[in-house]
Amino acid sequence: MRYSKLFGKTIKVASKETILLSHKLLYKAGFIRELAAGRYMFTPLGWRVMEKIVEIIDKEMSFLGSQRVFTPTLHPIGLWKATHRDEAFGESLMRIKDRRGSEFAIGATHEGVMVEFVKKFKPTWKDLPIIIHQFSLKFRDELRARGGLVRLREFLMKDAYSFATDEKEFMKTYQDQYQAYLKIARRLGFEAIPVEADAGALGGDFCHEFMVVNDKGEDTFVVCDKCDYAANVERAEGKLIPKNPKEKEFSLSEVKAKRGLNMEEMAKFYKVPSWRLLKTVIFFIKKKPIAVLIRGDLDINEIKLAKILKTNNFRIPEPEELKKLGTVRGFVSPIGLKVSQFFVDQSVLTVKNLITGANKLNVDLKNFNFPRDLKKGQIVDVALVKSGFLCGKCGKGKLKEERAIEFGHCFKYDNFYTKALNGVYVDKNNKEKLLWMGAFGIGIERAMALIVEAHHDQKGIIWPKEVAPYMAHLICLDKDSLKKTDEVYEKLLKEGIEVLYDDRENISAGVKFADADLIGIPYRLVISKKTKGKIELKERKDKKTELLTLPELIKRLK
Amino acid sequence: MRYSKLFGKTIKVASKETILLSHKLLYKAGFIRELAAGRYMFTPLGWRVMEKIVEIIDKEMSFLGSQRVFTPTLHPIGLWKATHRDEAFGESLMRIKDRRGSEFAIGATHEGVMVEFVKKFKPTWKDLPIIIHQFSLKFRDELRARGGLVRLREFLMKDAYSFATDEKEFMKTYQDQYQAYLKIARRLGFEAIPVEADAGALGGDFCHEFMVVNDKGEDTFVVCDKCDYAANVERAEGKLIPKNPKEKEFSLSEVKAKRGLNMEEMAKFYKVPSWRLLKTVIFFIKKKPIAVLIRGDLDINEIKLAKILKTNNFRIPEPEELKKLGTVRGFVSPIGLKVSQFFVDQSVLTVKNLITGANKLNVDLKNFNFPRDLKKGQIVDVALVKSGFLCGKCGKGKLKEERAIEFGHCFKYDNFYTKALNGVYVDKNNKEKLLWMGAFGIGIERAMALIVEAHHDQKGIIWPKEVAPYMAHLICLDKDSLKKTDEVYEKLLKEGIEVLYDDRENISAGVKFADADLIGIPYRLVISKKTKGKIELKERKDKKTELLTLPELIKRLK
Repeated sequence: MRYSKLFGKTIKVASKETILLSHKLLYKAGFIRELAAGRYMFTPLGWRVMEKIVEIIDKEMSFLGSQRVFTPTLHPIGLWKATHRDEAFGESLMRIKDRRGSEFAIGATHEGVMVEFVKKFKPTWKDLPIIIHQFSLKFRDELRARGGLVRLREFLMKDAYSFATDEKEFMKTYQDQYQAYLKIARRLGFEAIPVEADAGALGGDFCHEFMVVNDKGEDTFVVCDKCDYAANVERAEGKLIPKNPKEKEFSLSEVKAKRGLNMEEMAKFYKVPSWRLLKTVIFFIKKKPIAVLIRGDLDINEIKLAKILKTNNFRIPEPEELKKLGTVRGFVSPIGLKVSQFFVDQSVLTVKNLITGANKLNVDLKNFNFPRDLKKGQIVDVALVKSGFLCGKCGKGKLKEERAIEFGHCFKYDNFYTKALNGVYVDKNNKEKLLWMGAFGIGIERAMALIVEAHHDQKGIIWPKEVAPYMAHLICLDKDSLKKTDEVYEKLLKEGIEVLYDDRENISAGVKFADADLIGIPYRLVISKKTKGKIELKERKDKKTELLTLPELIKRLK
Repeated sequence: MRYSKLFGKTIKVASKETILLSHKLLYKAGFIRELAAGRYMFTPLGWRVMEKIVEIIDKEMSFLGSQRVFTPTLHPIGLWKATHRDEAFGESLMRIKDRRGSEFAIGATHEGVMVEFVKKFKPTWKDLPIIIHQFSLKFRDELRARGGLVRLREFLMKDAYSFATDEKEFMKTYQDQYQAYLKIARRLGFEAIPVEADAGALGGDFCHEFMVVNDKGEDTFVVCDKCDYAANVERAEGKLIPKNPKEKEFSLSEVKAKRGLNMEEMAKFYKVPSWRLLKTVIFFIKKKPIAVLIRGDLDINEIKLAKILKTNNFRIPEPEELKKLGTVRGFVSPIGLKVSQFFVDQSVLTVKNLITGANKLNVDLKNFNFPRDLKKGQIVDVALVKSGFLCGKCGKGKLKEERAIEFGHCFKYDNFYTKALNGVYVDKNNKEKLLWMGAFGIGIERAMALIVEAHHDQKGIIWPKEVAPYMAHLICLDKDSLKKTDEVYEKLLKEGIEVLYDDRENISAGVKFADADLIGIPYRLVISKKTKGKIELKERKDKKTELLTLPELIKRLK
């Protein structure tokens, strides 16, 4: 490809503020442009990278016996309603009625469609497991689109689905995908860490996210420093060591407290660490008030809470509602609080003589001890795990938080979808049984961003060879060398080497080199009067240059 | 691929009535299943064919210097409103608002997006022409989805767009695509005939449809038997020879006429051919009535009429409205008709002494002659051309109607889109000028149907080699030959030959042969005790079989 004819050129200044460097570099190097928030256009350079990512993933899927299919984007809404996924996805699922009034979901994921697809062929045990995948557009109306290609509102996804006779047969397909995801990440040029995660709106109770550590990432997971435990904080379980087990339980006493309303200010007022404080948080489930007690240095994990409450329809109270419950903002105490139920996080058991409010303005209670002072609380694990917790698995190591970007996700659904949609197979005894099912997704544009996050320097992108848009970036530095460079270009093409040829005239060497560094093609080839009939080769990732003859060059590049 | 593990098997009976044979065969052979009307799922066999069609088209596009891109499906509605394409597409364009209230069109075509894309890089004359293409989903909420893959509501399209400095540079890109379309059709295995067509909702005044003759097709075009003229009937121009030029113009006279109300019955009543009659059709443009006069054997082409009227917002009158105009249904006459304007199709000039109604029940007028009896009519060409017209181009040949399915479409837009969206480039004098633009589309699923329409027999599909899902269909006929067949299978795979291997046990030879014929893979290979260590080869399209050794076989298949 001649650079002069390439659609999509480099630009010196990024017009927009960017959070992620991949966003800025892909924009400046001319790989992407935004059409609308979260909806991107890919130039020929951008598409070439996407195509290579697709190829790598497609190959790895076929190694697992997965077969590629192609299915519609508009799904009859019934396929979503059968499992209440329309409610679970909420507003992020886009819906549309056609001119005849039929309602469709715009595919945010394809579980329902795939169950329907498999059903059409009435599988028997002999056909199973069935593993199918596609590269399909996904539409998710995210509240905020951010980070360039990391959180898009429409994107290309490799989504695979497996269907099996039983859990054992299913788990083999899950393990295969799990291993493939690690391998795909490595082939793309980064390390993905599998972490236990929450299935969220997709359903099922067991899944893994494949995380790539990135301090600008939106996800947080914890890893154990002793065992292999790793989990998304949304899902992570940790243990706590008693803080002051030897302390005597003192008697409850009221104290005057003209203090700020949050835990931080309260700790400052008493000159104690915040684990000394009790945090009592009130929620309403419709009109029913409940209270959650937790140690002052911890936060409530709302996903854990939703599981305990068996609903995610809870909210914090309005100021007037607090009054009715017999309390006042910033001074909430469980003692005397008019709620229907108390949930006590296990962290409350690790501290003696906690300080809490007294349901009166500017009055606190000292020496709260559970269960001495609150008989009816139900002990639960509802804390958001963070650095410093003991590992929930081995109980010995300490957990450490890492910020990350999710690269892929594996889901085990058991019969969740197949039960709702009557996804059955015929077993050896000619009886109908529910299929076991799972799903496995990788976002292609996000993978592209992750590659750039892992492979760049001050000057630009450094594409790994497997995903580079071109293998060589050929540069002609002077008019006298144009004929020679044209010849080299043609010969490299004949050898099947993918070359981007900067054939621009009247452009300085500096600009051409800067563009090559920004675009990030693995091999830079320079021809000028100075190279005296040879070709100067430099790897993008290295500093050193070499002078090679054409046959030597071809040997190196193939 | 082992057939036992293939997702998507053959089925004996098609469950649904089908108009097109391609629909029935692709369904029975297990290539497609319907998710909803006009929305199809493609099995691995189906996807493999689509992938090969995509590859062929992508290659042909790159030969023309077209560069592949990737753009969003949801388009900010403003890109459509700027050219009033939202109105032109009407209800077939699906629209959706996101959770923030922004309105999007679901991509029915991508002209607006592509102008926007090109603008982002501020092209200069040096960058032009820019030719870009993509394989993208298109959504069109067709009133009726029919014929399996021929009229879908969502489908994959190769859509290419060219941008040029001027008409001459543009026409070069148009001609390239035109030639490529003929070549692509041939590579896919059928003949496409370029015909002049109407641009319809897409705009522009010059375009070609590439038609494949098919008696079940929804389109009709005419071809000249003397010159190269071919045009969609919607657009076709033809000439008419005077029917009775030597006849004397008789004087107008009223006659009693107790007759049926349509042209056919009227002709029967007078025992004359229907060209002897005058048809007067009234339309309302909002509240303004107009009348179109045409020869009784011809129909009005509403697309031509819309161009004459400069609106497609016209309708036929209600019965009460007819009364107000001073006429009665079935007996409409231009003489004394209270309309604001008369349009007289040129066909009216080819007949002397026409018979028409008299604006009174059961009364006709004989010997109507234009312009003698109607001074104020505007002569127009508004007839739907049909077999028997003289060619509008050479004026000598006769036109013949053909039913057809559209395979592809090339559009010349001039500055239609770029003017509305300010799609400019910088010329040699550093001045901004409007880009010249065109678009070129091929539907992938429809291409698949057209291949099957052209390549099948009573038993099933006969895939041309370039697009076959596999090159060879290997069949083992008895248990004793299983080991040998496994070996041949592995060796063929190693040689890079794509093989579908029917490894099913306890399935009769008859069933296996029938499945192979239905699926239609080019080479059938059979191994059994009878083949005595050799392999029996039969081409799907032929009857004769041959016994080959493995090396001979590999040589034949490569």
